[in-house]
Amino acid sequence: MLDDARKKEIQELMAVIGRQARAASRPLAMASAERKHAALVSMASTIVARKDEILAANALDLENARETGVAASFLDRLTLSENRVLDMANAIRAIAELPDPVGDIIAEWDRPNGLHIERVRTPLGVIGVIYESRPNVTADAGALCLKAGNAVILRGGSDSLHSSQAIHACLVQGLKDAGLPEHAIQMVPVADRSAVGAMLTGLGGSIDVIVPRGGKSLVARVQNEARVPVFAHLEGLCHVYVDASADLDMARKIIVNAKMRRTGVCGSAETLLIDRKVASTFVAPLIAALRDAGCEVRASEDIRAIVPGLIAATEEDWATEYLDAIISVTLVDGIAGAIDHISTWSSSHTEAVIAEDPAVVERFFAEVDSAILLHNASTQFADGGEFGMGGEIGIATGKMHARGPVGVEQLTSFKYRVRGTGQVRP
Amino acid sequence: MLDDARKKEIQELMAVIGRQARAASRPLAMASAERKHAALVSMASTIVARKDEILAANALDLENARETGVAASFLDRLTLSENRVLDMANAIRAIAELPDPVGDIIAEWDRPNGLHIERVRTPLGVIGVIYESRPNVTADAGALCLKAGNAVILRGGSDSLHSSQAIHACLVQGLKDAGLPEHAIQMVPVADRSAVGAMLTGLGGSIDVIVPRGGKSLVARVQNEARVPVFAHLEGLCHVYVDASADLDMARKIIVNAKMRRTGVCGSAETLLIDRKVASTFVAPLIAALRDAGCEVRASEDIRAIVPGLIAATEEDWATEYLDAIISVTLVDGIAGAIDHISTWSSSHTEAVIAEDPAVVERFFAEVDSAILLHNASTQFADGGEFGMGGEIGIATGKMHARGPVGVEQLTSFKYRVRGTGQVRP
Repeated sequence: MLDDARKKEIQELMAVIGRQARAASRPLAMASAERKHAALVSMASTIVARKDEILAANALDLENARETGVAASFLDRLTLSENRVLDMANAIRAIAELPDPVGDIIAEWDRPNGLHIERVRTPLGVIGVIYESRPNVTADAGALCLKAGNAVILRGGSDSLHSSQAIHACLVQGLKDAGLPEHAIQMVPVADRSAVGAMLTGLGGSIDVIVPRGGKSLVARVQNEARVPVFAHLEGLCHVYVDASADLDMARKIIVNAKMRRTGVCGSAETLLIDRKVASTFVAPLIAALRDAGCEVRASEDIRAIVPGLIAATEEDWATEYLDAIISVTLVDGIAGAIDHISTWSSSHTEAVIAEDPAVVERFFAEVDSAILLHNASTQFADGGEFGMGGEIGIATGKMHARGPVGVEQLTSFKYRVRGTGQVRP
Repeated sequence: MLDDARKKEIQELMAVIGRQARAASRPLAMASAERKHAALVSMASTIVARKDEILAANALDLENARETGVAASFLDRLTLSENRVLDMANAIRAIAELPDPVGDIIAEWDRPNGLHIERVRTPLGVIGVIYESRPNVTADAGALCLKAGNAVILRGGSDSLHSSQAIHACLVQGLKDAGLPEHAIQMVPVADRSAVGAMLTGLGGSIDVIVPRGGKSLVARVQNEARVPVFAHLEGLCHVYVDASADLDMARKIIVNAKMRRTGVCGSAETLLIDRKVASTFVAPLIAALRDAGCEVRASEDIRAIVPGLIAATEEDWATEYLDAIISVTLVDGIAGAIDHISTWSSSHTEAVIAEDPAVVERFFAEVDSAILLHNASTQFADGGEFGMGGEIGIATGKMHARGPVGVEQLTSFKYRVRGTGQVRP
């Protein structure tokens, strides 16, 4: 009974947050670019000014986390340092300097009857962001949503609640300084899991889109349960295909970077496909380069026949996003074989082809249907910043609306403005 | 038990249709523009050649419908004539001549590290179209989806099954003539309602988007139950606001057209808002023009004080899409009052402002968030053909992906192609 009472309390709290967000989204959609810029600049300055408060809040979160005995990687994601706080402020400043997308005319044309039609960018409305322990997501997501004229409801992990609240207070100060509605960036103040459930229903029409930021189990839950659109990717099972026409030195450099630069990011490579035609010359040096870089190699039988002593790959390996210093490797029959393997196992995130033959590249670009395809470049470029979008709230693999890096532009919708001089339809 | 057995049979049938559609979508996504054009041209010719067969099938549907005693408007939607069949063929020819959207580079840019990034249009995949008694939707939807490189699963109303199947056979002949996969355009061959339920679940990942075409109850069911994205509008509760700065003659011409040209279409006006400042000069002539055109007027008290004898509008009228020769009328306090009324009652479909004051127009364009906004033009221009899109599968009011008329371009997604010369990420 106590549980039910608590649940009801959370439902009501979330409904209020939803209504406040929707109410804030209207003036926000009409806010000038200058005002949003001013708010972002003030948020960044406030974060720098309140650095010590943020670090003190973070120390509290870290102490609680250590008491419950979490993994070192978890602690690392949770930990803020003076430099990380300054980076956060700089990221907001970079978002402030991006062009304002709202009001952009995406396309315009004239009709024979004299009507002039414009397709113009508008905010999406209210965005719900559900994330885990990284406190910097609070700043990134809040700033990106504001830049695109959206209200945002932030629901961070309970482990980082103190840190996120300290950062959130700085964002609200920035809104106040610029005369924008305080409810433009709200943070769910409770750790109850039912708050997430409420957000996934869309809070009675108060949330237009949900962005989950975190591990696979969080994203899977959001994708399964959300009753509103979701911008997300479940995993980044990225492939690199090395064609017979590839420059071997370039292939070596790219595959080591694609796998080992950072193994825990969604754009890191998980499977290497090598053209069977060059097995005798390419396999040994590519695998040696990976092993020299500290990577474990799990290989198909035909690869193991060339480089003895490798661990055997099972079918499960082709389906696994390791997010670790491990790679699966197999031979394929040229570009057709590579496309077959990728169609079967890919998560539609990012794939790369290393080749000098333009016909191979064009076929790869035409037939592989993942959000991001690269030629002669590392899969680790799958990132909004690297795409020149000045920041991203995540990478999406759906086919609707946002696909690939989700930057400020992808956080918008559009409407048509039609200018006439008295036209009626015959 | 028999019901359960039948349900299982339908489930299995629909699963097969889904797998066939997904399999067809792959070669279709890579089909050349020429081949899709050839298929469409052949579809149109086959429809003309088989005119008599189509009309005979339609006669059968009409006979069945008359026996069950349906409304005259229903019979009209169901009826094909020689002219309507020829119009259908011509509509397919017009779609054939549209530019092919697949492979279009929507945007491209260079990065400081030399990477060249292209955002390129791709098909969505498999589209499910659920419609009612109009047999011509079979031809329109099949042709539009094919032009955009998508496979389509058509589920028409049981009343038009014979007509739709005769038309569908022509579409399949066109696919065969062009050497495209026959399963690119499939039609659900049974009338069971559980087939619709199966489509709304996405057929185990085989459907990427659902387009409902029909009345409000169909669209509401699809929007509530679909587990995949839906391109639709629930209703078109369109407003016309006549500002004090309007040209009265233009306002009269536009409001009569917006309401009365065709009253059953989603772009017809349902509510007229008149600026209180010009009540004494505008109200009487605008209402006279509507009544002269045969329109019933339901008016607010302040309007009835000016034109005696009008039916009183209740709050329900502001929320009603009449789809008939009826309009609701009220005074508002200038542009701010108009925006208030529209924000409260609009279905986010289409609204028009009649005004000469540019400040009023720009405020209307900035603050009203409907898919289509018109200045000094009739709301009946809310149509893909009128927008120059060469046909539409419907009009959408969601904020994701397709919004406004859903033409060939809106039936696509995109991917990124990144061209490098060996770049690795630092």
